[in-house]
Amino acid sequence: MSKTRPGRFFEDYRVGEVIAHSVPRTVTDGDRALYRALYPTRFALWSSDEFARACGLARSPLEDLAAFHVVFGKTVPDISLNAVANLGYAEARFLLPVWPGDTLTTTSEVIGLKENSSGKTGVVWVRSTGRNQDGEAVMSFCRWVMVRKRDVGAPAPETVVPDLAASIGAKDLVVPAGLDFTGYDFALAGEPWRCGDYEIGERIDHVDRVTIEEAEHMMATRLWQNTAKVHFDVTAREDGRRLIYGGHVISLGRALSFNGLANAQIVAGINAGSHVAPCHAGDTISAWSEVLDRTKIDAPGVGALRVRTVAVKAGTEKPEDGALTLRGDDGKYLPGVLLDLDYWVLAPC
Amino acid sequence: MSKTRPGRFFEDYRVGEVIAHSVPRTVTDGDRALYRALYPTRFALWSSDEFARACGLARSPLEDLAAFHVVFGKTVPDISLNAVANLGYAEARFLLPVWPGDTLTTTSEVIGLKENSSGKTGVVWVRSTGRNQDGEAVMSFCRWVMVRKRDVGAPAPETVVPDLAASIGAKDLVVPAGLDFTGYDFALAGEPWRCGDYEIGERIDHVDRVTIEEAEHMMATRLWQNTAKVHFDVTAREDGRRLIYGGHVISLGRALSFNGLANAQIVAGINAGSHVAPCHAGDTISAWSEVLDRTKIDAPGVGALRVRTVAVKAGTEKPEDGALTLRGDDGKYLPGVLLDLDYWVLAPC
Amino acid sequence: MSKTRPGRFFEDYRVGEVIAHSVPRTVTDGDRALYRALYPTRFALWSSDEFARACGLARSPLEDLAAFHVVFGKTVPDISLNAVANLGYAEARFLLPVWPGDTLTTTSEVIGLKENSSGKTGVVWVRSTGRNQDGEAVMSFCRWVMVRKRDVGAPAPETVVPDLAASIGAKDLVVPAGLDFTGYDFALAGEPWRCGDYEIGERIDHVDRVTIEEAEHMMATRLWQNTAKVHFDVTAREDGRRLIYGGHVISLGRALSFNGLANAQIVAGINAGSHVAPCHAGDTISAWSEVLDRTKIDAPGVGALRVRTVAVKAGTEKPEDGALTLRGDDGKYLPGVLLDLDYWVLAPC
Repeated sequence: MSKTRPGRFFEDYRVGEVIAHSVPRTVTDGDRALYRALYPTRFALWSSDEFARACGLARSPLEDLAAFHVVFGKTVPDISLNAVANLGYAEARFLLPVWPGDTLTTTSEVIGLKENSSGKTGVVWVRSTGRNQDGEAVMSFCRWVMVRKRDVGAPAPETVVPDLAASIGAKDLVVPAGLDFTGYDFALAGEPWRCGDYEIGERIDHVDRVTIEEAEHMMATRLWQNTAKVHFDVTAREDGRRLIYGGHVISLGRALSFNGLANAQIVAGINAGSHVAPCHAGDTISAWSEVLDRTKIDAPGVGALRVRTVAVKAGTEKPEDGALTLRGDDGKYLPGVLLDLDYWVLAPC
Repeated sequence: MSKTRPGRFFEDYRVGEVIAHSVPRTVTDGDRALYRALYPTRFALWSSDEFARACGLARSPLEDLAAFHVVFGKTVPDISLNAVANLGYAEARFLLPVWPGDTLTTTSEVIGLKENSSGKTGVVWVRSTGRNQDGEAVMSFCRWVMVRKRDVGAPAPETVVPDLAASIGAKDLVVPAGLDFTGYDFALAGEPWRCGDYEIGERIDHVDRVTIEEAEHMMATRLWQNTAKVHFDVTAREDGRRLIYGGHVISLGRALSFNGLANAQIVAGINAGSHVAPCHAGDTISAWSEVLDRTKIDAPGVGALRVRTVAVKAGTEKPEDGALTLRGDDGKYLPGVLLDLDYWVLAPC
Repeated sequence: MSKTRPGRFFEDYRVGEVIAHSVPRTVTDGDRALYRALYPTRFALWSSDEFARACGLARSPLEDLAAFHVVFGKTVPDISLNAVANLGYAEARFLLPVWPGDTLTTTSEVIGLKENSSGKTGVVWVRSTGRNQDGEAVMSFCRWVMVRKRDVGAPAPETVVPDLAASIGAKDLVVPAGLDFTGYDFALAGEPWRCGDYEIGERIDHVDRVTIEEAEHMMATRLWQNTAKVHFDVTAREDGRRLIYGGHVISLGRALSFNGLANAQIVAGINAGSHVAPCHAGDTISAWSEVLDRTKIDAPGVGALRVRTVAVKAGTEKPEDGALTLRGDDGKYLPGVLLDLDYWVLAPC
């Protein structure tokens, strides 16, 4: 019998099944340093233990998206190793800070299945939960992927499409215990803007750009123990190119958003995310954001902004009116759009 | 007088001489994070402090091969700076875990010398020992290298060829104090296989592949403070290419072996290792393993597998029968074989 | 109103103004590991906690130039984002060790302004001070940059050119509290040379070379949270090439200087520094040094060497006499010279 894990195929999933993913992972200050070397992140709460303490936390936790990537990475061997496409995210909520020294594990519940009309693939919906060494949930999120069938003759399962929220209600956002922005130091944080300074509908050009290298995205993706072959192996795809892990683009977009959203300190939830087009080494990435909503939060001095951050590949032809447009007249994403991420951030209000 | 160290030449070695290598090195969680970013390692004992504790250790040590590279790196300025070739390893035994915070130093005893018939080079055998800050030996290994003579007219030394064991006896393997696999969690570790599930002669295709980048192997090799010019300097070799440190390929092969050998948690010894062919950035590496032996070990729940792991460069023409073959009919390594590593691992039995 | 910070232009500076730079930064052992992966540094005091303790320190601090890069990086958004050129450094003094766990902030005082005759740019002199979480100054340095005017019609400020010392007096160098080289272990450090073994005027070829990769200099520059676009974005410059952060070349030159200056453990001050020519990925860098001065220091066993380290790009045509020459007969830097750094190091005497 083969000792090698082939990964699961569409017919291997059952709605209601809970999959305990392998290889727990202890996170450390080493991961924080690497996150900083790999992404141009400058949010003060993650950069400085002192700033975090001034905001009521014990020290600076592991950056929220770094924790997300670790929890996500655990799911790959069981969920997306044979995936054709990562179709979307929903209902991602950050529930507890992850501290250096914490050990993370992930479980996923299969919450939906739908065979495609081709009969060769199907969509699998899962809700994944990351837990620390005390068994406390630190985050949960839904994602759905298109997975190959091992045997095209296998019977289609009963179709179950989960009812996922289009966005997380602000009242369902979890604020880290103790967070207090009443003494927030805007000068140290880098920008003077409070939640109330952002208008709904406002668009922000984050200006900065990064040209991506192969070594960088592979180091990041390995750090998260994400094992999907396409990220590492030029022989894995017909085009002979490595496909960059979508989460790498998420972290780049978020980091670039500092310039204009410097006070958007904490990602509290992800409402939706689409990897609109593939990203490759050599691409130069910029980002812009649109403010979708803003609200107060039941924590001292804390508000929430709902933001869409769009990562764009430079050098792509754009319409005349140019700036910060997501879709063309036909309703389709414009050429060059790589990522459309709709999420909630906590900021001083 | 020149202040720059030229490195030693063949006539500078004396059998019995002990060389204390310079630059002690403290290892930290930062090194662990980088090891994870540079190699796709997922063995649970090194990934999780909690998993290590459940196996009877105080926490997760520095990964064994990372410790090996640090100890090895110390020897380069004195042993292999003027080496033409790194000919082999033998009798490598891991004696104590290396913990974050430990400071490592290395000494090498010259145990053999043999001038080559050309009169231009000779073979130097050394036994190197890594020690922690308490002077305890954490590992020892023999290696032999071909070194240039400074002066081809220098007289040949008396030939001394050490008597090195073809393999380490299982009873000579050292098990970390407290190691106990009786409560081993196979689900968390990622695979269900115990030592007894592997047949002697069984071959395992580890499936995953990694395409190597220059930045990665240089960062790794610098991390180990290995100063050999050929790894960093395109002007150092006639072909204008950087040669990848053989240990980088060892760590890649070992990390890739997770898929099929996930429970081979600890490298306890290296019986033999050959860098069969040079490796360069751009190469795509796969690995397969052959189980050479298996045995019980005098520690609760612990067994040992003797494994040969072979790292192979993708895209190389192979014989028709293809799979997992080391040598051709002529007894020579097949094209594409980069590494042939024969080692002992500890796994649950 | 735009939320994005455009950076300051020449007319935005006033002599005497103190700018508090944003985004405090906690440094950790993760940064130390990355510094080691990115530069071939081997100085024993930074490599080993045990060696540092034997020299009277509590443990090994963050490498001095790593601390410099962090403090420098803070200044970029306010000082050099719209800079045309980084013209020079002076009076850089390292005042206190930076320990893992320390949180650094930077302030800069504008000490000089001079509009250029073109009326399009001007020179801004600042004295920047890095402080730890207790408000103690850990270093201070002057630098001057050429900055664009936003509005060429803006009136020129009164010209103030600060009176900067050509070099720091040895008596103004600050020795870390407790530093004691009387029990210095030369064998562990890697070379036998004391201060007194170096002659003034002596030139040392450091022999080793490094070919630079894009991923490496970008990871380093991001680690220091240096946001200058030209380092990351191929669309930011007309030549479509990323310009390597000058500090990357400083750290490479310093690390390469180990071979011949292994006992130059601590950078105590930088007298002057010029980035003579741009550096790009693919360049192969070597370094040589000239001993400019030597002196005793009021600390047990400690002396100081004033050294010029020159980083050179390989493959550049050189004059016949070749070796270790800084300038041609015309007094201009020779082709291939990238960095001319004049600094003080502490070494055993």
